[in-house]
Amino acid sequence: MSSNDRHPNWKEKLHEVIYEADTLAGKIFDIVLLIFIIASIALVMLESISTIDNKYHDILYYGEWVITILFSIEYIARVITVRKPWKYIFSFYGIIDFLSTIPMYVSFVLVGSQALLSLRALRLLRIFRILKIARYLGASNQLKDSLIASRVKILVFLFGVIVSSIIFGTIMYLVEGEENGFTNIPKSVYWCIVTLTTVGFGDIAPQTALGQFITSIIMILGYGIIAVPTGIVSAEYVKSSNKDEKLKEAIVDSKSLDLNSQVCRNCNASDHKDTADYCHACGQKLHL
Amino acid sequence: MSSNDRHPNWKEKLHEVIYEADTLAGKIFDIVLLIFIIASIALVMLESISTIDNKYHDILYYGEWVITILFSIEYIARVITVRKPWKYIFSFYGIIDFLSTIPMYVSFVLVGSQALLSLRALRLLRIFRILKIARYLGASNQLKDSLIASRVKILVFLFGVIVSSIIFGTIMYLVEGEENGFTNIPKSVYWCIVTLTTVGFGDIAPQTALGQFITSIIMILGYGIIAVPTGIVSAEYVKSSNKDEKLKEAIVDSKSLDLNSQVCRNCNASDHKDTADYCHACGQKLHL
Amino acid sequence: MSSNDRHPNWKEKLHEVIYEADTLAGKIFDIVLLIFIIASIALVMLESISTIDNKYHDILYYGEWVITILFSIEYIARVITVRKPWKYIFSFYGIIDFLSTIPMYVSFVLVGSQALLSLRALRLLRIFRILKIARYLGASNQLKDSLIASRVKILVFLFGVIVSSIIFGTIMYLVEGEENGFTNIPKSVYWCIVTLTTVGFGDIAPQTALGQFITSIIMILGYGIIAVPTGIVSAEYVKSSNKDEKLKEAIVDSKSLDLNSQVCRNCNASDHKDTADYCHACGQKLHL
Amino acid sequence: MSSNDRHPNWKEKLHEVIYEADTLAGKIFDIVLLIFIIASIALVMLESISTIDNKYHDILYYGEWVITILFSIEYIARVITVRKPWKYIFSFYGIIDFLSTIPMYVSFVLVGSQALLSLRALRLLRIFRILKIARYLGASNQLKDSLIASRVKILVFLFGVIVSSIIFGTIMYLVEGEENGFTNIPKSVYWCIVTLTTVGFGDIAPQTALGQFITSIIMILGYGIIAVPTGIVSAEYVKSSNKDEKLKEAIVDSKSLDLNSQVCRNCNASDHKDTADYCHACGQKLHL
Repeated sequence: MSSNDRHPNWKEKLHEVIYEADTLAGKIFDIVLLIFIIASIALVMLESISTIDNKYHDILYYGEWVITILFSIEYIARVITVRKPWKYIFSFYGIIDFLSTIPMYVSFVLVGSQALLSLRALRLLRIFRILKIARYLGASNQLKDSLIASRVKILVFLFGVIVSSIIFGTIMYLVEGEENGFTNIPKSVYWCIVTLTTVGFGDIAPQTALGQFITSIIMILGYGIIAVPTGIVSAEYVKSSNKDEKLKEAIVDSKSLDLNSQVCRNCNASDHKDTADYCHACGQKLHL
Repeated sequence: MSSNDRHPNWKEKLHEVIYEADTLAGKIFDIVLLIFIIASIALVMLESISTIDNKYHDILYYGEWVITILFSIEYIARVITVRKPWKYIFSFYGIIDFLSTIPMYVSFVLVGSQALLSLRALRLLRIFRILKIARYLGASNQLKDSLIASRVKILVFLFGVIVSSIIFGTIMYLVEGEENGFTNIPKSVYWCIVTLTTVGFGDIAPQTALGQFITSIIMILGYGIIAVPTGIVSAEYVKSSNKDEKLKEAIVDSKSLDLNSQVCRNCNASDHKDTADYCHACGQKLHL
Repeated sequence: MSSNDRHPNWKEKLHEVIYEADTLAGKIFDIVLLIFIIASIALVMLESISTIDNKYHDILYYGEWVITILFSIEYIARVITVRKPWKYIFSFYGIIDFLSTIPMYVSFVLVGSQALLSLRALRLLRIFRILKIARYLGASNQLKDSLIASRVKILVFLFGVIVSSIIFGTIMYLVEGEENGFTNIPKSVYWCIVTLTTVGFGDIAPQTALGQFITSIIMILGYGIIAVPTGIVSAEYVKSSNKDEKLKEAIVDSKSLDLNSQVCRNCNASDHKDTADYCHACGQKLHL
Repeated sequence: MSSNDRHPNWKEKLHEVIYEADTLAGKIFDIVLLIFIIASIALVMLESISTIDNKYHDILYYGEWVITILFSIEYIARVITVRKPWKYIFSFYGIIDFLSTIPMYVSFVLVGSQALLSLRALRLLRIFRILKIARYLGASNQLKDSLIASRVKILVFLFGVIVSSIIFGTIMYLVEGEENGFTNIPKSVYWCIVTLTTVGFGDIAPQTALGQFITSIIMILGYGIIAVPTGIVSAEYVKSSNKDEKLKEAIVDSKSLDLNSQVCRNCNASDHKDTADYCHACGQKLHL
């Protein structure tokens, strides 16, 4: 369908493999990357379990280096195959990719017995690798649109939760006092959020009759508040359902399931039409 | 209404009784089976209460054998009355029926003092008998359709919950540390799911001020997240309500309440039209 | 508007006062009754607080007798003013009225030191007086209609919750065992309902890693399940909103706020049209 | 657009700055006020943490006086720039402004060692300053309309929660008794609200088998009840979404984001049309 005026060089071929999922090589690359991301998160988790870490520390450590090196190669490949590397480096995924690669190198440089604790924290930054999976979820756009459309209502709701929590938290601090676990207002506000959101840990609980009466009011109020975000999102979904019934179904078929993963190798723009030959943002030819 | 070219034999008559609920005999069979399923689940439960098991062990044991033998007869009857037995045996209900019948026989063969504990686990497989009741709930189709229609959104939601839990779990592990119950990342992730879903057991709870502040953010976030699946299902229900208002009411009248329980005795296909004389899947005559 | 062929006798006048709220006397009767119901519930509650009961036992006891006698008079008046008393006596409100009047008399007959505990239970039946308030809430009809319209879906949902709880409860009993608080299957099923409904008391909580992993699955599942009843009710409300937008507003104006409280004194039928002169159920003249 | 017949005096200029946010000075005033409100709430919170209060008591005390004096000046300015001061003083915001300014002065007058505890409570009234922020949230009107439109349904729902709690609370008091934490009926009702709203602190939890069975019923019931307020709000949002799709979008653009903050300096009426030159309530010229 697309006309090629010249032979694509290795950079363009690599760009196709790394950034897109139309070709077989591109699909295999994505699946392999996904497996390594999940493996790297499993490594971080296993390392935190002291009994496993004591027993298999060396295996976990080498596995971590293998993944770090592979991620480094992937990061460098992504930078060199894009025409405008700085745009990628400072994009959302660029920063995520960098942050999930760097910790092991930092731990190498900052080695020393006294820095062990802070190193551990740096290493845990690797957990952000999980956000790389977001790359594979173009289908979340509708969800994002719903959230954006109802952002004013959501802010009003958040404001309501916070104000209610501060006022009721202060009242409960006065009623229950330090002897019943409400040691200060911030802690009392924290307890109030725990109650309003119906989480209810129970580490702090009202002991006096008056405190339990006020708590009952807070809970029934919280019950009403829970209805607000749900109502907002439901209404947004119903609205968007009515609006573009057929359009959406077409999108689900062609896009979210059989991902149209065309990404411009010049400006990294995505969301190209299925039949597009040129980038809608910069005019770069999309197919090789 | 239906024309019979020959006399039905005993297998076909038995098939009508076991698989369908149109005739009086079929209805009685279904009700008796339902009673035995509930009785068998009650037996498993009573057996697990040590005070009751010590006192009435023999009665529970013989009752269990009576039910096992009845289920065995039912299973054999189902297999021989169907024309293509293998299709039934490897169907969802075929496997459930087999799994809920077998444990007692296995415990007979694998008898021995050292195997008691694992035997007990096998016996508890009988609890899957409860799924047999699903046979009587054709009305759940609309629910299933709603879930299938919104499967992409549900996956995005599940992905959001899991990613949030892993990231916040790791942060809480760093902030609270092992001395406050967040002994490792998997446990911290578990705590995070407990909090995000607003369950809030309280067996682990943040103790530091920073931990409680982060928890507040997690809870308010969880509050917003709870809106997503509800919004999805609400929108689906509203959509389907608008679509086929009258169709649905007709279905409720004729189908879910007064179940059209025709099942083809050749290929086990169900969902036949009320006026159908022949199976829509294989052409087998439905009525005798 | 209505033509009276003869003078109403005292029974008919009393019926108008007790059963309806159109006249001034009827409205005053209703408000006084409401106050006594709330007072009687407050008495039951105060009596249960041992410090208050010890101090004011006599006042509470005499107050209780005053209310019992007033309720007895009301009950007798209701019976004699209706033409078909048995229909009232065995109606929902008739049984509630009887149950909320009788306990004090029973405690008089069954007096004795050994029967004290069971007497106390009988006395607490007086709490059912609260249901008398339901009489004043004709506005709940729309809610009731929504629930009836979606009864099949609600049953499917309840079935799903119970089956999930039994299966997961049994699995958790096997995984966690008696040493971690899951002492038998019924208790484990109870814990599972506590978790699925996101209540999460925390009196029982999983201790093993596998148990916590299964609990995570149960909670995310419960999160999805919570969407179902909400979706059902939302869809019903949206449907009924669309259907009779104007009709409803008219009902709210004329009915739920300024209650049309006509009740036939022959057959106790309610829900008469505002302009009705004769009972829609038995033809009895409504106005005097 | 607006024609000015005379030069505005300083009072009118100040009114423009304090009550409106159209001019640059007005916007700066609002932002500065917002910062001071948040700072004053932070002060109240920090003061309640004993370790911080012991260390920085003087700084917190002087900071509190600075804010009190600034709020006093603001309050006086608001009173003198409005033509009908009494209307402002007894309005919602007038009372809030007064209550958030007064506590420090009262603590000055009522000084004395024996009055320390009650003084502290008075000081905490300053927390109501947070409600001042509500001034900036005109966007909550739609939310308010939804709540008003469904007030009858919400009352029915609240009545349902309270009645269920009282009945089930009494039953649980009888079943579990004082030895399992259900020491009296009010406490038992409190526990019932904790359970019905799915908060589930776990400070009180059923111990007997029968108690746990009844609790299971309460929780599943509570699960259904949670659907009611959500369904109500969802339906209201969907209704209002359908009604004035375009109107709303226009409002969001012009109003909630770029707040039309015209307030009449004669009668304090707000919600003027964007093109209005005169107050819709009293005819006062709006622009200077």
